[in-house]
Order: sequence, then C-alpha cells, then structure tokens
Amino acid sequence: MASMATGFIKTPSPFHFIRRTSYTHLGAPITVSIAGSCKAKKTHLPLRVSMGLIEPDGGRLVELLVEEPLRGLKKKEALSLPAIQLTGVDIQWVHVLSEGWASPLTGFMRESEFLQTLHFNSLRLPDGSVANMSVPIVLAIDDAQKHSIGDSTSVALIDAKNNNPIAILKDIEIYKHPKEERISRTWGTTAPGLPYVDRAITNVGNWLIGGDLEVIEPIKYHDGLDRFRQSPAELREEFTRRNADAVFAFQLRNPVHNGHALLMTDTRRRLLDMGYKNPILLLHPLGGYTKADDVPLSWRMKQHEKVLEDGVLDPETTVVSIFPSPMHYAGPTEVQWHAKARINAGANFYIVGRDPAGMGHPTEKRDLYDAEHGKKVLSMAPGLERLNILPFRVAAYDKTQGKMAFFDPSRAQDFLFISGTKMRGLAKNKESPPEGFMCPGGWKVLVEYYESLVPASRNGRLPEPEPVLA
Amino acid sequence: MASMATGFIKTPSPFHFIRRTSYTHLGAPITVSIAGSCKAKKTHLPLRVSMGLIEPDGGRLVELLVEEPLRGLKKKEALSLPAIQLTGVDIQWVHVLSEGWASPLTGFMRESEFLQTLHFNSLRLPDGSVANMSVPIVLAIDDAQKHSIGDSTSVALIDAKNNNPIAILKDIEIYKHPKEERISRTWGTTAPGLPYVDRAITNVGNWLIGGDLEVIEPIKYHDGLDRFRQSPAELREEFTRRNADAVFAFQLRNPVHNGHALLMTDTRRRLLDMGYKNPILLLHPLGGYTKADDVPLSWRMKQHEKVLEDGVLDPETTVVSIFPSPMHYAGPTEVQWHAKARINAGANFYIVGRDPAGMGHPTEKRDLYDAEHGKKVLSMAPGLERLNILPFRVAAYDKTQGKMAFFDPSRAQDFLFISGTKMRGLAKNKESPPEGFMCPGGWKVLVEYYESLVPASRNGRLPEPEPVLA
Repeated sequence: MASMATGFIKTPSPFHFIRRTSYTHLGAPITVSIAGSCKAKKTHLPLRVSMGLIEPDGGRLVELLVEEPLRGLKKKEALSLPAIQLTGVDIQWVHVLSEGWASPLTGFMRESEFLQTLHFNSLRLPDGSVANMSVPIVLAIDDAQKHSIGDSTSVALIDAKNNNPIAILKDIEIYKHPKEERISRTWGTTAPGLPYVDRAITNVGNWLIGGDLEVIEPIKYHDGLDRFRQSPAELREEFTRRNADAVFAFQLRNPVHNGHALLMTDTRRRLLDMGYKNPILLLHPLGGYTKADDVPLSWRMKQHEKVLEDGVLDPETTVVSIFPSPMHYAGPTEVQWHAKARINAGANFYIVGRDPAGMGHPTEKRDLYDAEHGKKVLSMAPGLERLNILPFRVAAYDKTQGKMAFFDPSRAQDFLFISGTKMRGLAKNKESPPEGFMCPGGWKVLVEYYESLVPASRNGRLPEPEPVLA
Repeated sequence: MASMATGFIKTPSPFHFIRRTSYTHLGAPITVSIAGSCKAKKTHLPLRVSMGLIEPDGGRLVELLVEEPLRGLKKKEALSLPAIQLTGVDIQWVHVLSEGWASPLTGFMRESEFLQTLHFNSLRLPDGSVANMSVPIVLAIDDAQKHSIGDSTSVALIDAKNNNPIAILKDIEIYKHPKEERISRTWGTTAPGLPYVDRAITNVGNWLIGGDLEVIEPIKYHDGLDRFRQSPAELREEFTRRNADAVFAFQLRNPVHNGHALLMTDTRRRLLDMGYKNPILLLHPLGGYTKADDVPLSWRMKQHEKVLEDGVLDPETTVVSIFPSPMHYAGPTEVQWHAKARINAGANFYIVGRDPAGMGHPTEKRDLYDAEHGKKVLSMAPGLERLNILPFRVAAYDKTQGKMAFFDPSRAQDFLFISGTKMRGLAKNKESPPEGFMCPGGWKVLVEYYESLVPASRNGRLPEPEPVLA
C-alpha cells in the first residue's frame, strides 16, 4: 500500500487543498435560514448577514415533496394512473430525489440526462453551466409495464410491498435501457458479481422511464433511525443554527476507527488554522443498499454513537446524519456522486481517502480500481470546481506510539495496516484489535453484531432495513 | 430503420441546426493565411479582413514537428536515448498528434489527460475552459520497455519495421494501463472481438507512457496518397485560399454513394440559404487503421476521385483530404473525436448521420450502439459547443424516382435501404445496384476492388497501407 506522500500528494501534510472555492468567510453570526437557494433567501439586515453556505447545484435545492394540504388529492390522482411497482432500491432513489440530494434533477432521468451522465459524468444546465452527475438515477420497467402505460403521460409509483402510492411521475419519457453500456461506462467492467448490478440492474426491465417526480409523502423507514435521516434542507438549517462557517463532509459505509477520527479532527484543526472560526463535521454514513458483507446501517449507527459518546469526536462540532443513497461500489465514478450530493447538503469541503467507493474485483485477485484514481478523478470532475477536495494520507496503527497515526513511509516497519477484512475477522472471532485502534465502546458494538449473525441469517448478514411508508 | 424525422429531429428539413456558434460572417474576401492561431496571425488591413475560421481547440494549432534545420540534431539525440518501438497504429497516432488534430494535446496522454478522457470525454485547460477529448491517445509499453527506460526523462520512438527514429517523447510519465477499464469506458462493452481492441490493446503492454512529442520529420506513407494527407494547417490555408466563409466536414470510411452526395449538396444549398456566400465541403475519409471488412483506403480514394470526376460533387467547392486517425468503432464516444479533430482543421459545421462510428455487436445479433445515440451525444458533448452539428435524415433509394432521396416515412414502401453489407455483396458478385444508387465510375472501382481480392489475400482483404518513413 503506497502512502499518498510518495505519489499524488507532494506536501508533508496529511492533506492539501487541491482547489479553493470562491467561498467568502464573512465571520458574522448566521441567523437566516438558507435551506433552498442562498440567493433567493438572502436578506440584507445590517448586523445579521447570511454567510452563505455553498449554493446547491443549479442554484436551488430541488425538493419534490407534495405540500401537505395537497397530499390527499395527489394520492387520489395516483390511484387513477397506470401503476409501476417499486423495489426497495427504487424507493431509496425516490427518497434521494425527493429531498434534492441530486439537485438539479427533478425526477428519474430522461434519456438526455442518462446519456450525459454515462458519457460526461455531468449535465449541462439551461444557463450553460455544468452540474456534476456521475451515476444514472433511473427507473427500469419491463415490456408489460411499458404496455400497461399505453399513452398515459403520467404514472403512479407504488410500493411493491403494500401497494401504497408513493409518487407520481409526470411528463414521462420511455427509452431503451442499454444495460451492458450502462454497466461498462459506470463501473469500467462488465465482470459478473458487481453487487449493485446483481441487485438492481440484471433482473430489471429493458426500458427506462424518466420524468418529473411528485412525491406524495416523506419516505420513512420506521427502523428507529429516521431521526438521523436529515434532508439537505434540514442539514443546511442545522449548519446555520450552529453558525458553521465551513462544513466538511466525511462519507463512510464502515465502522469508524481511530484512523478516521484522527483525520477528521486533524481536518478541523487545519480549517481553524486557515482562519475558519467554526468548521462543522458532517459525519455522513451511507444508509441505502449496501453489499452483504458490509456492516448493516443499524449496527454502524450504534457504533458511531459510541464513538461520539466515548469522546473520540466532539459532538459540539459534529453532525451525524444518514445519507439515503444506495451504494454502487463504482469507485471513481461514484465518489463524484458522493461529493456532489454533499454540496447540496451545504458541505464545501469533502474528505476523500484511498480507493473511495472501491471494492475487490469480482472475478480477479486485485482491487477493481486503482486506489489513487478516486481522488484524482474527483479533483478533475466537471461541476465540482466549487468544492474543496481534501485528500488525506492513509492512517495506520503506529506500534511505537500504540495509536493510529498518519503513515510515515520512512519508518514503514513501525506501522500495522488493519484492513476491513482483518477488522471483521477479529470482531467475528471476538478478538481485540491493538489498543488504540478503535474506542472500546465502538468495538463492543462490532463484536455484538457478529455474535448476532449466527442464528439470524444463513448468508452471514441480517436483513437490511427497507423503506416502509407510514 | 427509423427516420430521424420521427425521433430526434422534429423539423421536416433533412437536418436542423442543433446549436449556433458565435461565428460571425463578415462577407469579406479572405486573403490572410490563418494556419495556426487565428488570434496570433490576425492582420488589420483595411480592405482585406481575416474572416476567422473557427479557432483550434485551446486557441492554437499545436504542431509538434521539429523545424528542418534541427532535424539532424534531434535524430542524433534520439539515437542516444532509450528506444521504444512503435507499431503501425502507434505511428498513425504520432502522425495525428504531430499535425495538431488533437490540439491542445502536446503528445501522448499523461495520466491526468487519460483519466479525464475516460471519465469526462473532455479536458479542462489551464484557463478553465474545456476541450473535447473522447478517445485515449496513449502509448503502451511492457515491463521490459519500462525497465529499459530506467531513470531517463526522455525516450526515442522508433519505427519497429526499420529502426528509424521517428520522434522524441520528453518529460515522460509512466502509469498503469488499466485495459479493462479503458475498453469498458471507451466502447461501453468488453465483448471480445472489438477490432481496435484486438489490434492495438489486448496484446500491448500493461503500462502507458505519456509526454511531450517532438516529431523528427513529417510522417509519410509513400503509397501515392500522401498528397491527399493535408494537415490541419494546410487545410486551413486551402479554405482561406478558396475564400470559404463556412466549412462543413463529412467524415466517412465507406465508398460515397448518391445518398451521401445528396446530403452534402443539400447541406451546401442550405448554408447558402442561410446567407453564407461560399461554403466549402471537406470530404474527409479516414485513413488510419480500419477493420478487415471495410474497403481499404486506396480503393476508397479511387472511388472518391471517380465521384468527383463524374460530377456528383462539385470539385470547385469540395476539398478531398485524408484524416490520418485510426478507427476505434466506438460509436458515440468516437464521433466526438471525429468532430473535434475537424474543428482543428477549420470546420465549423459537422455532418452526422445514423449510427456514426458504429458497427455490429461483436457477440450479439444487434448493433453495438443505438443508432440515434451518436448524434445525441455529439450535440451534448462538452467542448463542442462552438461546432454546428448537422444531423441528417437517412437517405434511401426512392423506387418511384429511381434515385437516392431523403426517406419519407409516410410512403416507406417506396424506399429501398441498401446497407453496407448489401452493397458489398452486390459488388463482390459483380451485380449492379439500382440505377442512381452510385455513379457508374464509382461502382466500377468497387467491383474491381472485390475482383482484386481473390488472389491477393486469404482473409478477404488487401494488406492495408502502413506508414513508412522516407
């Protein structure tokens, strides 16, 4: 494993700033809610200035929820339309779209957006500017469903589990679903065994249906974690309430160990050094579909809570929230989506590590992606110019200090790399990692998770939480 | 086969203008040579205004030829450097790069350019603007070659056939050649049997070497066709000499039939209708590597000459020249390269048809690409905003008129589609196509080509022309 100090990053610091935004730190207290467009809601009170969180892509947070008084009416309308049943992953995308994570998208992609996503990882907006968009957010239908739609220009999207209408898709466009091309261009491979492909592409229909979404009510999962599922607007309000003058996002889908904590606290320290008065960390675990051998969301959230309780991260300057997107495991392509969505939630700094959104190659004995490509591609991605990318050096267990530290290649022999596989193996066998690798409370959660597995599941995993409508 | 009139194109005209450039038609005669940057060479004579052909990408035509007095010296320098042997396709790319078709590239791609090409089909330039770049122009080396380079910062590029030094590659960067990812992201498939992959990727090394090229002398092929191989600078001079106020490019790799001729003359007529005084057609057959069952360049050139001789196209307003690029058969990805290169040669209008740069799927019974995707992707491609894209309706043989005409779906039964396969079948069997399909002189060339095949080759094809240094 190469240290970044020897490759992409030439400075001795654990990260450097690839690109500076035009972000202006005004230093004044923030009292104006800036959910939605900063521009639209900016006020001009003399003493209370909106410091302006980063603007959403396209200038406006596109929320697609039907307003409360109209929901009954919309539900009735939905019942009169041709119905398309949604899978759990489809509903997660409806959730993502409904809250504006994918702004400026107004619904499932039409062909023009789909093609731009596949070929350019970005969308040209009507004013000529460019928004990043790297993973297709599309809805597949089969021949029978296409036939059932007939000439209708709208369809109802229905929860397949309980037949509840979730949304209406308007001004629809139906076009071919070129699965092989979609997979090749998104993952850079067509090898069998890509988890998202197996779950959400191989067995779905050969057509895609795009259109404008009207989501009838907020998507809820009723798994005890909905309070952590803050929308971009709610997060923007929270950052404003806390007087954040910088927001740095950390995407993760794994338990937090002290190496992660080190770089998050180190990032905050550096932002303070740069003159920011109150940088806030958005610790943002991914909550949608993940592959079978990842630790499920509910256990990860328990673990993250312990990490905050144990004082490894400071709750005063940390917001823990759930990012509702499903996981593609599409490496350099997907990391752009992860970063772009956080702009919409108000983050202007994005932390990126080694091999983001990567996994092992499904059929060859190697990683699917070059470990350095993710951060390189992210730093060059169209539409992300406003975002400060914070690549970081890899952290490892420093045996001389008995704690996690930034890897120093000049004394490589002092460091121990504890991979995810190694960590899972230790927890499964109820062994302890070296002291200082993870806070004891957090480790205990992991061990409990693996204990819980044995009776609960044949495939080594608890059933994952699925969205359920109220 | 769907008519474009029913899909992408809503107007009844054979093409419409997707996008207008900021091109200004000054109407004055042009006498100033504008090879190289228009900006740099613009003069301010009161009566003779440079009307300004479209600027090359990046503002300047990047020519990489060593000036004549220095060639001896450079050759000597090359002989002192580690040597990399080039294949025929490699030399075609050196040719392409040397003349500035790929401006603003200054040589084989370094990793940053390679990754931007794969992920975004475009390069961000130092001034923040974007140039289109959709196919990787890269040079592969193997472990032994990498080892032989050692710490050298420059290498000599050598013609493998005669060991002549062709170029020096300076400030080199060696990086991994992720073949599977390159193929997936360029072709949208990894199916075995892609011609360019079999020819130029599968069996080459696992490293890529990028750097700045110094090409020691012009690449020549000595096949009697070098006089047709005009560089972008030479074409710009020619268009200027002819007082062109619009240049419309037609890329092809097949014999010209009267359907092609129809749309080229129709395009000229429409440009005249728009107020241009002297639109010039760049009839621009691709001259680099093509697959085994395409008609070889030498025969195509004979056929194109006949078409001009027979008066199907007007020599006064047509420039026939050879585009030296190898063919990828990468559909919507490659058509961007074909268009972008023609901007560098001075074309501000680009004609695009059904399924550009497409082919049959190598392992499935269908076309590899959706026939409409090419022109859609081209119209949305970053860095091509300045180019006027001219999609055209498909032409077919109108049995009622006994000639090629734009297909009219309201009387589909009157039309006969003569595919490339059908055309080749007729010519092989010395049968005649319907009168009016192709001028008799052109058809005769095709029949002669297929006659010549039988004794000449086992695989159904004459050996293709290879670049040969003087």
